[in-house]
Amino acid sequence: MRIYFDNAATTPMHPDVIAHMSQLMGEVYGNPSSIHQAGRKARIIIEDARKSVAKELNCSIGEVFFTSSATEANNMILRRSVQDLGVKRMIISSIEHPCVLNTVKELEKLNLIDLEILNVNNLGLIDLSELKTILAKSEVKTLVSVMHVNNEIGVIQDIESISKICQENNALFHCDAVQSIAKMPIDLQKVKIDYLSGTSHKFHGPKGVGFMILSNDYTLLPFITGGGQERELRSGTENVPGIAGLAEALKIYAAERTEKVNVIRALKYRFKLKLKAALPEILFLEDENPERFIPTILSVSFPENARTELITFNLDIAGISASAGSACASGVEQASHVLESIKFPEDRRAVRFSFSYFNTEEEVDDCVDKIKKIFS
Amino acid sequence: MRIYFDNAATTPMHPDVIAHMSQLMGEVYGNPSSIHQAGRKARIIIEDARKSVAKELNCSIGEVFFTSSATEANNMILRRSVQDLGVKRMIISSIEHPCVLNTVKELEKLNLIDLEILNVNNLGLIDLSELKTILAKSEVKTLVSVMHVNNEIGVIQDIESISKICQENNALFHCDAVQSIAKMPIDLQKVKIDYLSGTSHKFHGPKGVGFMILSNDYTLLPFITGGGQERELRSGTENVPGIAGLAEALKIYAAERTEKVNVIRALKYRFKLKLKAALPEILFLEDENPERFIPTILSVSFPENARTELITFNLDIAGISASAGSACASGVEQASHVLESIKFPEDRRAVRFSFSYFNTEEEVDDCVDKIKKIFS
Repeated sequence: MRIYFDNAATTPMHPDVIAHMSQLMGEVYGNPSSIHQAGRKARIIIEDARKSVAKELNCSIGEVFFTSSATEANNMILRRSVQDLGVKRMIISSIEHPCVLNTVKELEKLNLIDLEILNVNNLGLIDLSELKTILAKSEVKTLVSVMHVNNEIGVIQDIESISKICQENNALFHCDAVQSIAKMPIDLQKVKIDYLSGTSHKFHGPKGVGFMILSNDYTLLPFITGGGQERELRSGTENVPGIAGLAEALKIYAAERTEKVNVIRALKYRFKLKLKAALPEILFLEDENPERFIPTILSVSFPENARTELITFNLDIAGISASAGSACASGVEQASHVLESIKFPEDRRAVRFSFSYFNTEEEVDDCVDKIKKIFS
Repeated sequence: MRIYFDNAATTPMHPDVIAHMSQLMGEVYGNPSSIHQAGRKARIIIEDARKSVAKELNCSIGEVFFTSSATEANNMILRRSVQDLGVKRMIISSIEHPCVLNTVKELEKLNLIDLEILNVNNLGLIDLSELKTILAKSEVKTLVSVMHVNNEIGVIQDIESISKICQENNALFHCDAVQSIAKMPIDLQKVKIDYLSGTSHKFHGPKGVGFMILSNDYTLLPFITGGGQERELRSGTENVPGIAGLAEALKIYAAERTEKVNVIRALKYRFKLKLKAALPEILFLEDENPERFIPTILSVSFPENARTELITFNLDIAGISASAGSACASGVEQASHVLESIKFPEDRRAVRFSFSYFNTEEEVDDCVDKIKKIFS
């Protein structure tokens, strides 16, 4: 039995979502831009999906735009805010996802923006007073980009406070919410976020479809130009079954969010307890303040020795899919900028175990047994 | 019975492709960038798909990159060739798809390029000597973008000659091959095309996935930056089932290309013959030179009168999906830049009927009957 504990990289699709998409792939074949019946049927599906996303995030339907990924959404938001709104400075945390990090670095290299990078503490949290200080330093048009939940370690940033600070300083706020969408409620009427991005495959929906919320107050121009789909903001024939799959997966998750997250929280707790009992030299990154970490992600710190040097490789051989860092690399384990930022000790090895509501107690127990064997 | 004659807008998916994708959605859930077994399984699928595309186009595997659409591919090629290769002039035909047209117009507006637009004759063909003259006018780095087959009228450009002229004048050649991929053989060892784009949903594959061929001679930098997927050239978690679906649809089409296209050609011929017999005042755009038009697309010219003013609307009511222009508009029928370019008579109405190998003789006969009724 293979055990999949890499749900922060991507999640298995929900069977109902697969069934729904398979049906749509057969039945709804029109181009949503066509005005005939076949086209109108496809159009309705997209607009229904848009309503679901808007409902989940409590924003206006007109603020939801579908993309091919959160990466595309983040590229559009970051690049077009420079071009269309005259953003001249960006402030990001040091543990942003590569799609934010690499994009803002390119913008900096092109001399289009000044880039300020916020330090994080040993848990991965930014320092709100540092954000205030940097914002106060200059009056140029600024965009702050801080992810909601970090993909490698699971730390949850205080986006309510970040949003407030941005508002007080007249800065735009972009939040990559890829790891939290569906799993944590986000109410955009309570927290003002100008730009937010998410992707379906992190909550049991299909790969290849994401979305962005663009606040009505700060509209951008399209990053991908063409036929004028998505109300002129994102061209390219819409991925109708993918968009429907995203909405369906989001609905399924959100409908029983508390129950599902409680299941995951209990699995993580069981895993920690059993692992610690089996191997006392193991540490958890979240030990200091577990409440600041999302239940789906657990960063485990192993002592460095001959057995942990190839720990993810050995786990894989034992039938466990887990990850040393994030999956977004070129297939090689690279030094993690996140672990570096939190000053993760060089004499320890970090492994990310990430859970979904499809995981079971048996898998947790089996995984602990296998880790014990690796170390015995 | 609904009749779908709008296959240039998008095609119904092949049932085998749906079955294949449905299976993969359930079984292959890993992130292709993960190094564990679940990830490696996903990686293999993508690389197999890449081989299929490379085989079909006779190019190197390393030149194939998957995207979310041809629109995205065209945006990358056009925008990054300016940024990375110093292209300062672009030459396009006046009947390019909006994703080329609108993108180069934005580049022109930003003063990044000089834009030259090639006229077309009444069939939609560019004048090769005009291309030569314009190319000879200046020595600045130039990219020529001419689509292989036009989406509204089906005219086939002479890409062999265009390629040769580009080479003689040291210009880059980009070809949007969306309408011809799968339906016409393209051998990139025989025709030198620096950049080529295609999309799966035009040949019975899924929506939301396309590809670009980037010649090894002129590599670009990524348009969408991030985790470095697609060998650092296109970031974002790969749409694994979509990519597999694209390759599967392409294989199915190409394996019996001649047979399939002959079926379509015969359907078009039957349609023309019966329609002309029923309504002699009808004309076909391709009348002058049918060999220059792809069998999948037929542009029909109706006389303007009370019955043809709302012709596509009346066809839709009669159960026929056809299109007045392309589908890539905001749901309203707009004046077509293509029809304008070929000087389509203002006192006639154009309707695009576009066929696939799923269409039948019965549908053709039924459609002609229904058109006769609309006119009776």
